[in-house]
Amino acid sequence: MATSAKSRSRSTFGTRNQPEASRDAILKAAASEFANEGLSGARMDAIARSARVNKALLYYYFRDKDALYGAVLDQFFRPLAQRLTLVLDSPMPAGQRILGYALAHFDTIASTPHYARLFQSEMMSASRGMSPHLSRIVEEYSRPLSQRLVATLTEGIDRREFRSVDVTELIPTLIATIVFYFVTAPMRQRLRGTDLFSLEAIQARRAAVLDQIAAMLFADREAGLCLAAEFASSGGSAEISPSPVSQPSHHVAARKHKLKRPE
Amino acid sequence: MATSAKSRSRSTFGTRNQPEASRDAILKAAASEFANEGLSGARMDAIARSARVNKALLYYYFRDKDALYGAVLDQFFRPLAQRLTLVLDSPMPAGQRILGYALAHFDTIASTPHYARLFQSEMMSASRGMSPHLSRIVEEYSRPLSQRLVATLTEGIDRREFRSVDVTELIPTLIATIVFYFVTAPMRQRLRGTDLFSLEAIQARRAAVLDQIAAMLFADREAGLCLAAEFASSGGSAEISPSPVSQPSHHVAARKHKLKRPE
Repeated sequence: MATSAKSRSRSTFGTRNQPEASRDAILKAAASEFANEGLSGARMDAIARSARVNKALLYYYFRDKDALYGAVLDQFFRPLAQRLTLVLDSPMPAGQRILGYALAHFDTIASTPHYARLFQSEMMSASRGMSPHLSRIVEEYSRPLSQRLVATLTEGIDRREFRSVDVTELIPTLIATIVFYFVTAPMRQRLRGTDLFSLEAIQARRAAVLDQIAAMLFADREAGLCLAAEFASSGGSAEISPSPVSQPSHHVAARKHKLKRPE
Repeated sequence: MATSAKSRSRSTFGTRNQPEASRDAILKAAASEFANEGLSGARMDAIARSARVNKALLYYYFRDKDALYGAVLDQFFRPLAQRLTLVLDSPMPAGQRILGYALAHFDTIASTPHYARLFQSEMMSASRGMSPHLSRIVEEYSRPLSQRLVATLTEGIDRREFRSVDVTELIPTLIATIVFYFVTAPMRQRLRGTDLFSLEAIQARRAAVLDQIAAMLFADREAGLCLAAEFASSGGSAEISPSPVSQPSHHVAARKHKLKRPE
Protein backbone atom coordinates (compact mmCIF):
# COMPACT_ATOMS: atom_id res chain seq x y z
CA MET A 1 0.00 0.00 0.00
CA ALA A 2 2.02 2.94 -1.32
CA THR A 3 0.96 6.31 0.01
CA SER A 4 1.85 9.47 -1.89
CA ALA A 5 3.90 12.05 -0.02
CA LYS A 6 0.95 14.40 -0.28
CA SER A 7 -1.62 12.11 1.32
CA ARG A 8 0.81 10.93 3.99
CA SER A 9 1.59 14.51 4.87
CA ARG A 10 -2.14 15.18 5.16
CA SER A 11 -2.78 12.22 7.45
CA THR A 12 0.27 12.56 9.68
CA PHE A 13 -0.27 16.26 10.20
CA GLY A 14 -4.04 15.96 10.24
CA THR A 15 -4.15 16.72 13.95
CA ARG A 16 -1.68 19.60 13.67
CA ASN A 17 -4.29 22.11 14.80
CA GLN A 18 -5.31 19.96 17.76
CA PRO A 19 -2.09 19.66 19.75
CA GLU A 20 -3.86 18.12 22.76
CA ALA A 21 -5.50 15.51 20.57
CA SER A 22 -2.13 14.58 19.02
CA ARG A 23 -0.49 14.45 22.42
CA ASP A 24 -3.23 12.16 23.75
CA ALA A 25 -3.05 9.97 20.66
CA ILE A 26 0.72 9.61 21.11
CA LEU A 27 0.39 8.73 24.80
CA LYS A 28 -2.31 6.19 24.07
CA ALA A 29 -0.29 4.54 21.30
CA ALA A 30 2.85 4.62 23.43
CA ALA A 31 1.11 3.01 26.42
CA SER A 32 0.03 0.09 24.27
CA GLU A 33 3.47 -0.24 22.60
CA PHE A 34 5.33 -0.12 25.94
CA ALA A 35 2.91 -2.60 27.53
CA ASN A 36 3.43 -5.07 24.70
CA GLU A 37 7.12 -4.61 23.95
CA GLY A 38 8.60 -3.26 27.17
CA LEU A 39 10.70 -0.10 27.37
CA SER A 40 13.67 -1.53 25.47
CA GLY A 41 11.60 -3.29 22.81
CA ALA A 42 9.20 -0.43 22.08
CA ARG A 43 9.85 1.47 18.83
CA MET A 44 9.21 5.17 18.26
CA ASP A 45 8.35 4.42 14.61
CA ALA A 46 5.61 2.05 15.66
CA ILE A 47 4.22 4.56 18.15
CA ALA A 48 4.15 7.34 15.53
CA ARG A 49 2.45 5.02 13.03
CA SER A 50 -0.14 3.85 15.49
CA ALA A 51 -0.84 7.40 16.73
CA ARG A 52 -0.98 8.55 13.08
CA VAL A 53 1.43 11.42 13.69
CA ASN A 54 4.74 12.36 12.14
CA LYS A 55 7.71 11.00 14.05
CA ALA A 56 9.15 14.52 14.34
CA LEU A 57 6.09 15.51 16.35
CA LEU A 58 6.79 12.66 18.77
CA TYR A 59 10.26 14.04 19.46
CA TYR A 60 8.94 17.59 19.53
CA TYR A 61 6.52 16.73 22.33
CA PHE A 62 8.53 14.14 24.23
CA ARG A 63 12.27 14.62 23.51
CA ASP A 64 13.14 10.89 23.57
CA LYS A 65 11.74 7.44 24.22
CA ASP A 66 12.61 7.53 27.88
CA ALA A 67 10.81 10.85 28.42
CA LEU A 68 7.79 9.51 26.54
CA TYR A 69 7.78 6.45 28.79
CA GLY A 70 7.80 8.67 31.88
CA ALA A 71 4.93 10.73 30.46
CA VAL A 72 2.92 7.55 29.80
CA LEU A 73 3.33 6.42 33.40
CA ASP A 74 2.41 9.89 34.74
CA GLN A 75 -0.61 10.15 32.48
CA PHE A 76 -1.96 7.05 34.15
CA PHE A 77 -0.77 7.37 37.74
CA ARG A 78 -1.47 11.06 38.37
CA PRO A 79 -5.27 10.88 37.86
CA LEU A 80 -5.41 7.44 39.51
CA ALA A 81 -3.57 8.71 42.59
CA GLN A 82 -5.78 11.82 42.75
CA ARG A 83 -8.88 9.69 42.54
CA LEU A 84 -7.72 7.22 45.19
CA THR A 85 -6.50 10.00 47.50
CA LEU A 86 -9.92 11.67 47.34
CA VAL A 87 -11.57 8.40 48.37
CA LEU A 88 -9.16 7.65 51.23
CA ASP A 89 -9.32 11.25 52.53
CA SER A 90 -13.10 11.39 52.49
CA PRO A 91 -14.98 11.68 55.80
CA MET A 92 -16.66 8.26 55.42
CA PRO A 93 -16.11 5.36 57.83
CA ALA A 94 -12.97 3.29 57.17
CA GLY A 95 -14.93 0.38 55.67
CA GLN A 96 -16.49 2.54 52.99
CA ARG A 97 -13.17 4.18 52.22
CA ILE A 98 -11.43 0.82 51.71
CA LEU A 99 -14.24 -0.53 49.53
CA GLY A 100 -14.34 2.79 47.65
CA TYR A 101 -10.58 2.58 47.15
CA ALA A 102 -10.86 -0.98 45.79
CA LEU A 103 -13.69 0.00 43.46
CA ALA A 104 -11.91 3.09 42.09
CA HIS A 105 -8.62 1.20 41.65
CA PHE A 106 -10.38 -1.71 39.95
CA ASP A 107 -12.45 0.50 37.63
CA THR A 108 -9.44 2.53 36.56
CA ILE A 109 -7.47 -0.57 35.64
CA ALA A 110 -10.51 -2.18 34.00
CA SER A 111 -10.79 0.83 31.71
CA THR A 112 -7.07 0.72 30.78
CA PRO A 113 -5.97 -2.90 31.35
CA HIS A 114 -2.52 -2.63 29.76
CA TYR A 115 -1.38 -0.35 32.57
CA ALA A 116 -1.50 -3.23 35.02
CA ARG A 117 0.93 -5.12 32.82
CA LEU A 118 3.05 -2.04 32.21
CA PHE A 119 3.51 -1.44 35.92
CA GLN A 120 3.97 -5.13 36.65
CA SER A 121 6.74 -5.40 34.08
CA GLU A 122 8.42 -2.38 35.67
CA MET A 123 8.16 -4.03 39.08
CA MET A 124 9.62 -7.26 37.83
CA SER A 125 12.67 -5.54 36.44
CA ALA A 126 13.29 -3.97 39.87
CA SER A 127 15.49 -6.92 40.81
CA ARG A 128 17.99 -5.76 38.18
CA GLY A 129 18.12 -2.27 39.66
CA MET A 130 15.29 0.15 40.20
CA SER A 131 14.20 2.04 37.11
CA PRO A 132 14.31 5.80 37.75
CA HIS A 133 10.73 6.07 36.50
CA LEU A 134 9.46 3.37 38.79
CA SER A 135 11.10 4.81 41.85
CA ARG A 136 9.69 8.26 41.02
CA ILE A 137 6.18 6.81 40.49
CA VAL A 138 6.40 4.93 43.75
CA GLU A 139 7.72 7.94 45.70
CA GLU A 140 5.24 10.36 44.18
CA TYR A 141 2.11 8.23 44.06
CA SER A 142 2.40 4.78 45.68
CA ARG A 143 4.09 5.71 48.95
CA PRO A 144 1.59 8.47 49.94
CA LEU A 145 -1.30 6.16 48.98
CA SER A 146 0.21 3.34 50.96
CA GLN A 147 0.49 5.60 54.02
CA ARG A 148 -3.19 6.54 53.62
CA LEU A 149 -4.13 2.85 53.34
CA VAL A 150 -2.22 2.08 56.55
CA ALA A 151 -3.96 4.97 58.33
CA THR A 152 -7.41 3.91 57.09
CA LEU A 153 -6.90 0.25 57.99
CA THR A 154 -5.52 1.16 61.42
CA GLU A 155 -8.45 3.47 62.09
CA GLY A 156 -10.89 0.72 61.11
CA ILE A 157 -9.17 -1.76 63.42
CA ASP A 158 -9.09 0.74 66.32
CA ARG A 159 -12.80 1.39 65.91
CA ARG A 160 -13.56 -2.35 65.73
CA GLU A 161 -15.00 -1.90 62.25
CA PHE A 162 -12.28 -4.25 60.97
CA ARG A 163 -10.96 -7.37 62.60
CA SER A 164 -7.46 -7.20 63.98
CA VAL A 165 -5.32 -7.95 60.89
CA ASP A 166 -1.64 -7.45 60.12
CA VAL A 167 -1.95 -4.19 58.14
CA THR A 168 1.43 -4.49 56.38
CA GLU A 169 0.45 -7.94 55.12
CA LEU A 170 -3.07 -6.93 54.16
CA ILE A 171 -2.03 -4.21 51.70
CA PRO A 172 -0.20 -6.49 49.21
CA THR A 173 -3.17 -8.87 49.27
CA LEU A 174 -5.63 -6.01 48.79
CA ILE A 175 -3.73 -4.79 45.74
CA ALA A 176 -3.15 -8.33 44.43
CA THR A 177 -6.89 -9.02 44.62
CA ILE A 178 -7.56 -5.87 42.58
CA VAL A 179 -4.86 -6.15 39.89
CA PHE A 180 -3.97 -9.86 39.49
CA TYR A 181 -6.98 -10.58 37.29
CA PHE A 182 -5.72 -8.07 34.71
CA VAL A 183 -2.09 -9.16 34.85
CA THR A 184 -2.97 -12.80 34.16
CA ALA A 185 -5.99 -12.16 31.91
CA PRO A 186 -4.12 -12.36 28.57
CA MET A 187 -2.87 -15.84 29.47
CA ARG A 188 -6.15 -17.11 30.89
CA GLN A 189 -8.03 -15.64 27.96
CA ARG A 190 -5.99 -17.68 25.50
CA LEU A 191 -6.48 -20.84 27.50
CA ARG A 192 -10.16 -20.51 28.24
CA GLY A 193 -11.17 -18.91 25.00
CA THR A 194 -13.61 -16.65 26.87
CA ASP A 195 -13.52 -12.87 26.89
CA LEU A 196 -12.28 -11.81 30.34
CA PHE A 197 -12.76 -8.15 29.41
CA SER A 198 -16.43 -8.41 28.48
CA LEU A 199 -18.80 -6.24 30.51
CA GLU A 200 -20.23 -9.35 32.22
CA ALA A 201 -16.80 -10.71 33.09
CA ILE A 202 -15.61 -7.36 34.46
CA GLN A 203 -18.76 -6.92 36.53
CA ALA A 204 -18.49 -10.43 37.99
CA ARG A 205 -14.85 -9.83 38.89
CA ARG A 206 -15.65 -6.42 40.35
CA ALA A 207 -18.35 -7.85 42.64
CA ALA A 208 -16.05 -10.72 43.67
CA VAL A 209 -13.15 -8.36 44.50
CA LEU A 210 -15.33 -6.30 46.83
CA ASP A 211 -16.87 -9.43 48.36
CA GLN A 212 -13.46 -11.03 49.01
CA ILE A 213 -11.98 -7.87 50.52
CA ALA A 214 -14.99 -7.35 52.79
CA ALA A 215 -14.87 -11.01 53.92
CA MET A 216 -11.18 -10.67 54.80
CA LEU A 217 -11.48 -7.41 56.63
CA PHE A 218 -14.74 -6.53 58.38
CA ALA A 219 -15.20 -7.51 62.00
CA ASP A 220 -18.87 -8.12 61.25
CA ARG A 221 -18.41 -10.11 58.08
CA GLU A 222 -22.10 -10.20 57.12
CA ALA A 223 -22.42 -6.41 57.41
CA GLY A 224 -19.24 -6.02 55.33
CA LEU A 225 -20.56 -8.34 52.63
CA CYS A 226 -23.83 -6.37 52.44
CA LEU A 227 -21.92 -3.12 52.07
CA ALA A 228 -19.68 -4.69 49.40
CA ALA A 229 -22.72 -5.86 47.43
CA GLU A 230 -24.18 -2.36 47.67
CA PHE A 231 -20.93 -0.84 46.36
CA ALA A 232 -20.70 -3.38 43.52
CA SER A 233 -24.23 -2.72 42.32
CA SER A 234 -24.05 1.05 42.66
CA GLY A 235 -21.41 1.47 39.93
CA GLY A 236 -22.71 0.44 36.53
CA SER A 237 -21.09 0.05 33.15
CA ALA A 238 -21.01 3.83 32.71
CA GLU A 239 -18.33 3.91 35.40
CA ILE A 240 -16.14 1.44 33.57
CA SER A 241 -16.19 2.47 29.94
CA PRO A 242 -14.80 6.04 29.79
CA SER A 243 -11.05 6.22 30.18
CA PRO A 244 -9.92 8.05 33.31
CA VAL A 245 -6.85 9.07 31.35
CA SER A 246 -8.86 11.25 29.00
CA GLN A 247 -11.50 12.33 31.52
CA PRO A 248 -9.91 12.44 34.95
CA SER A 249 -11.91 15.31 36.40
CA HIS A 250 -15.26 13.92 35.30
CA HIS A 251 -14.29 10.60 36.74
CA VAL A 252 -13.21 11.87 40.11
CA ALA A 253 -16.41 13.87 40.36
CA ALA A 254 -18.52 10.86 39.42
CA ARG A 255 -16.74 8.66 41.94
CA LYS A 256 -17.02 11.26 44.67
CA HIS A 257 -20.72 11.58 44.04
CA LYS A 258 -21.20 7.85 43.96
CA LEU A 259 -19.28 7.17 47.12
CA LYS A 260 -21.54 9.45 49.07
CA ARG A 261 -24.60 7.39 48.27
CA PRO A 262 -24.10 4.46 50.64
CA GLU A 263 -23.91 6.76 53.66
CA MET B 1 41.23 -11.34 36.63
CA ALA B 2 42.96 -13.40 33.95
CA THR B 3 42.58 -17.15 34.33
CA SER B 4 45.06 -19.50 32.70
CA ALA B 5 43.64 -22.09 30.33
CA LYS B 6 44.80 -24.78 32.69
CA SER B 7 43.07 -23.49 35.82
CA ARG B 8 39.91 -22.65 33.88
CA SER B 9 39.85 -26.12 32.44
CA ARG B 10 40.17 -27.55 35.94
CA SER B 11 37.35 -25.48 37.37
CA THR B 12 34.93 -25.82 34.45
CA PHE B 13 35.31 -29.58 34.31
CA GLY B 14 35.51 -29.95 38.05
CA THR B 15 32.07 -31.56 38.22
CA ARG B 16 32.68 -33.80 35.20
CA ASN B 17 32.39 -36.93 37.27
CA GLN B 18 29.16 -35.82 38.90
CA PRO B 19 26.80 -35.41 35.94
CA GLU B 20 23.71 -34.91 38.14
CA ALA B 21 25.47 -32.24 40.17
CA SER B 22 26.47 -30.39 36.97
CA ARG B 23 22.97 -30.69 35.58
CA ASP B 24 21.49 -29.29 38.78
CA ALA B 25 24.05 -26.48 38.88
CA ILE B 26 23.18 -25.56 35.28
CA LEU B 27 19.44 -25.57 35.98
CA LYS B 28 19.93 -23.45 39.07
CA ALA B 29 22.11 -20.91 37.28
CA ALA B 30 19.74 -20.88 34.29
CA ALA B 31 16.68 -20.27 36.49
CA SER B 32 18.31 -17.22 37.98
CA GLU B 33 19.55 -15.92 34.60
CA PHE B 34 16.13 -16.40 32.93
CA ALA B 35 14.33 -14.78 35.88
CA ASN B 36 16.57 -11.73 35.71
CA GLU B 37 17.06 -11.35 31.97
CA GLY B 38 14.04 -13.03 30.41
CA LEU B 39 14.23 -15.74 27.75
CA SER B 40 15.54 -13.43 25.03
CA GLY B 41 18.01 -11.55 27.24
CA ALA B 42 19.50 -14.59 28.99
CA ARG B 43 22.97 -15.61 27.76
CA MET B 44 24.29 -19.18 27.65
CA ASP B 45 27.80 -17.83 28.42
CA ALA B 46 26.57 -16.27 31.64
CA ILE B 47 24.77 -19.46 32.66
CA ALA B 48 27.88 -21.59 32.04
CA ARG B 49 30.03 -19.14 33.99
CA SER B 50 27.65 -18.99 36.92
CA ALA B 51 27.20 -22.81 37.00
CA ARG B 52 31.00 -23.15 36.68
CA VAL B 53 30.74 -25.59 33.81
CA ASN B 54 32.10 -25.58 30.29
CA LYS B 55 29.68 -24.16 27.73
CA ALA B 56 29.95 -27.36 25.67
CA LEU B 57 28.49 -29.28 28.60
CA LEU B 58 25.50 -26.92 28.59
CA TYR B 59 24.77 -27.77 24.96
CA TYR B 60 25.51 -31.44 25.57
CA TYR B 61 22.86 -31.62 28.27
CA PHE B 62 20.29 -29.18 26.91
CA ARG B 63 20.72 -28.82 23.11
CA ASP B 64 19.87 -25.08 22.97
CA LYS B 65 18.69 -22.16 25.07
CA ASP B 66 15.05 -22.85 24.41
CA ALA B 67 15.33 -26.47 25.55
CA LEU B 68 17.20 -25.35 28.66
CA TYR B 69 14.42 -22.88 29.39
CA GLY B 70 11.82 -25.64 29.10
CA ALA B 71 13.89 -27.84 31.44
CA VAL B 72 14.09 -25.03 33.99
CA LEU B 73 10.32 -24.60 34.01
CA ASP B 74 9.77 -28.37 34.29
CA GLN B 75 12.31 -28.73 37.07
CA PHE B 76 10.21 -26.35 39.11
CA PHE B 77 6.64 -27.15 38.06
CA ARG B 78 6.77 -30.94 38.05
CA PRO B 79 7.60 -31.39 41.78
CA LEU B 80 5.36 -28.43 42.69
CA ALA B 81 2.42 -29.94 40.81
CA GLN B 82 3.04 -33.37 42.37
CA ARG B 83 3.14 -31.85 45.81
CA LEU B 84 -0.03 -29.79 45.32
CA THR B 85 -1.87 -32.71 43.70
CA LEU B 86 -1.07 -34.91 46.69
CA VAL B 87 -2.55 -32.29 49.01
CA LEU B 88 -5.71 -31.70 46.96
CA ASP B 89 -6.29 -35.44 46.47
CA SER B 90 -5.88 -36.28 50.14
CA PRO B 91 -8.90 -37.55 52.09
CA MET B 92 -8.99 -34.51 54.41
CA PRO B 93 -11.95 -32.10 54.58
CA ALA B 94 -11.99 -29.38 51.89
CA GLY B 95 -10.88 -26.65 54.30
CA GLN B 96 -7.70 -28.48 55.26
CA ARG B 97 -6.97 -29.29 51.63
CA ILE B 98 -7.25 -25.64 50.58
CA LEU B 99 -5.10 -24.41 53.48
CA GLY B 100 -2.61 -27.23 52.82
CA TYR B 101 -2.52 -26.25 49.15
CA ALA B 102 -1.84 -22.61 50.06
CA LEU B 103 0.91 -23.59 52.50
CA ALA B 104 2.65 -25.96 50.07
CA HIS B 105 2.42 -23.46 47.20
CA PHE B 106 3.70 -20.64 49.39
CA ASP B 107 6.58 -22.67 50.85
CA THR B 108 7.72 -23.87 47.44
CA ILE B 109 7.86 -20.33 46.08
CA ALA B 110 9.46 -19.02 49.28
CA SER B 111 12.28 -21.50 48.81
CA THR B 112 12.80 -20.52 45.15
CA PRO B 113 11.46 -16.96 44.84
CA HIS B 114 12.71 -16.24 41.32
CA TYR B 115 10.29 -18.79 39.91
CA ALA B 116 7.37 -16.53 40.73
CA ARG B 117 8.95 -13.83 38.61
CA LEU B 118 9.90 -16.28 35.89
CA PHE B 119 6.34 -17.52 35.54
CA GLN B 120 4.91 -14.02 35.86
CA SER B 121 7.12 -12.73 33.06
CA GLU B 122 5.96 -15.65 30.90
CA MET B 123 2.35 -14.81 31.66
CA MET B 124 2.84 -11.19 30.82
CA SER B 125 4.21 -11.99 27.41
CA ALA B 126 1.09 -14.06 26.70
CA SER B 127 -0.58 -11.03 25.14
CA ARG B 128 1.99 -11.17 22.33
CA GLY B 129 1.19 -14.79 21.59
CA MET B 130 1.38 -17.77 23.91
CA SER B 131 4.85 -19.15 24.44
CA PRO B 132 4.93 -22.88 23.63
CA HIS B 133 6.54 -23.53 27.03
CA LEU B 134 3.90 -21.63 28.93
CA SER B 135 1.03 -23.34 27.18
CA ARG B 136 2.62 -26.73 27.85
CA ILE B 137 3.19 -25.88 31.54
CA VAL B 138 -0.37 -24.70 31.89
CA GLU B 139 -1.83 -27.74 30.10
CA GLU B 140 0.34 -30.22 31.95
CA TYR B 141 0.36 -28.71 35.44
CA SER B 142 -1.90 -25.68 35.92
CA ARG B 143 -5.07 -26.92 34.28
CA PRO B 144 -5.31 -30.23 36.23
CA LEU B 145 -4.54 -28.34 39.46
CA SER B 146 -7.13 -25.74 38.66
CA GLN B 147 -9.73 -28.50 38.10
CA ARG B 148 -8.83 -29.99 41.49
CA LEU B 149 -9.15 -26.58 43.13
CA VAL B 150 -12.60 -26.12 41.58
CA ALA B 151 -13.65 -29.57 42.82
CA THR B 152 -12.31 -28.95 46.33
CA LEU B 153 -13.92 -25.52 46.61
CA THR B 154 -17.23 -26.82 45.26
CA GLU B 155 -17.18 -29.72 47.71
CA GLY B 156 -16.50 -27.31 50.60
CA ILE B 157 -19.39 -25.09 49.53
CA ASP B 158 -21.76 -28.04 49.12
CA ARG B 159 -20.92 -29.29 52.60
CA ARG B 160 -21.35 -25.79 54.06
CA GLU B 161 -17.74 -25.79 55.20
CA PHE B 162 -17.16 -22.76 52.92
CA ARG B 163 -19.46 -19.85 52.36
CA SER B 164 -21.12 -19.65 48.98
CA VAL B 165 -18.44 -17.91 46.88
CA ASP B 166 -17.93 -17.57 43.12
CA VAL B 167 -15.35 -20.36 42.66
CA THR B 168 -14.02 -19.08 39.32
CA GLU B 169 -13.32 -15.70 40.90
CA LEU B 170 -11.85 -17.12 44.08
CA ILE B 171 -9.05 -19.06 42.38
CA PRO B 172 -7.21 -16.03 40.91
CA THR B 173 -7.43 -14.29 44.30
CA LEU B 174 -6.20 -17.40 46.11
CA ILE B 175 -3.16 -17.62 43.82
CA ALA B 176 -2.60 -13.85 43.90
CA THR B 177 -2.56 -13.90 47.70
CA ILE B 178 0.08 -16.64 47.62
CA VAL B 179 2.40 -15.34 44.89
CA PHE B 180 2.02 -11.53 44.74
CA TYR B 181 4.32 -10.95 47.70
CA PHE B 182 7.20 -12.61 45.82
CA VAL B 183 6.50 -10.92 42.49
CA THR B 184 6.59 -7.45 44.04
CA ALA B 185 9.20 -8.15 46.73
CA PRO B 186 12.26 -6.96 44.74
CA MET B 187 10.63 -3.56 44.28
CA ARG B 188 9.33 -3.23 47.82
CA GLN B 189 12.63 -4.41 49.20
CA ARG B 190 14.47 -1.59 47.47
CA LEU B 191 11.97 0.96 48.71
CA ARG B 192 11.63 -0.18 52.29
CA GLY B 193 15.20 -1.28 52.78
CA THR B 194 14.02 -4.26 54.81
CA ASP B 195 14.69 -7.90 53.97
CA LEU B 196 11.40 -9.35 52.73
CA PHE B 197 13.04 -12.78 52.42
CA SER B 198 14.23 -13.04 56.02
CA LEU B 199 12.86 -15.95 58.01
CA GLU B 200 10.76 -13.57 60.14
CA ALA B 201 9.32 -11.79 57.08
CA ILE B 202 8.50 -15.08 55.33
CA GLN B 203 6.85 -16.51 58.44
CA ALA B 204 4.74 -13.37 58.96
CA ARG B 205 3.64 -13.46 55.32
CA ARG B 206 2.92 -17.18 55.53
CA ALA B 207 0.66 -16.76 58.57
CA ALA B 208 -1.08 -13.76 56.94
CA VAL B 209 -1.74 -15.67 53.69
CA LEU B 210 -3.44 -18.53 55.54
CA ASP B 211 -5.37 -16.11 57.75
CA GLN B 212 -6.61 -14.07 54.77
CA ILE B 213 -7.66 -17.15 52.78
CA ALA B 214 -9.48 -18.64 55.76
CA ALA B 215 -11.28 -15.33 56.43
CA MET B 216 -12.44 -15.14 52.81
CA LEU B 217 -13.58 -18.71 52.55
CA PHE B 218 -14.83 -20.51 55.65
CA ALA B 219 -18.52 -20.38 56.49
CA ASP B 220 -17.55 -20.33 60.16
CA ARG B 221 -14.85 -17.70 59.95
CA GLU B 222 -13.60 -18.10 63.51
CA ALA B 223 -13.15 -21.86 63.09
CA GLY B 224 -11.34 -21.23 59.78
CA LEU B 225 -9.00 -18.70 61.40
CA CYS B 226 -8.14 -21.17 64.19
CA LEU B 227 -7.35 -23.86 61.64
CA ALA B 228 -5.24 -21.40 59.63
CA ALA B 229 -3.24 -20.45 62.73
CA GLU B 230 -2.68 -24.14 63.46
CA PHE B 231 -1.43 -24.73 59.91
CA ALA B 232 0.86 -21.69 60.02
CA SER B 233 2.50 -22.75 63.27
CA SER B 234 2.84 -26.42 62.33
CA GLY B 235 5.32 -25.75 59.51
CA GLY B 236 8.60 -24.35 60.81
CA SER B 237 11.66 -22.97 59.08
CA ALA B 238 12.78 -26.50 58.19
CA GLU B 239 9.89 -26.60 55.75
CA ILE B 240 11.03 -23.45 54.02
CA SER B 241 14.76 -23.72 53.62
CA PRO B 242 15.46 -26.85 51.53
CA SER B 243 14.86 -26.33 47.84
CA PRO B 244 12.08 -28.52 46.44
CA VAL B 245 14.01 -28.47 43.17
CA SER B 246 16.86 -30.45 44.59
CA GLN B 247 14.85 -32.53 47.08
CA PRO B 248 11.41 -33.07 45.64
CA SER B 249 10.70 -36.51 47.06
CA HIS B 250 11.82 -35.59 50.56
CA HIS B 251 9.70 -32.49 50.39
CA VAL B 252 6.54 -34.18 49.24
CA ALA B 253 6.95 -36.79 51.94
CA ALA B 254 7.51 -34.13 54.60
CA ARG B 255 4.43 -32.25 53.50
CA LYS B 256 2.29 -35.36 53.38
CA HIS B 257 3.33 -36.23 56.88
CA LYS B 258 2.73 -32.73 58.11
CA LEU B 259 -0.67 -32.37 56.56
CA LYS B 260 -1.89 -35.39 58.40
CA ARG B 261 -1.25 -33.84 61.76
CA PRO B 262 -4.20 -31.45 61.99
CA GLU B 263 -6.73 -34.29 61.42
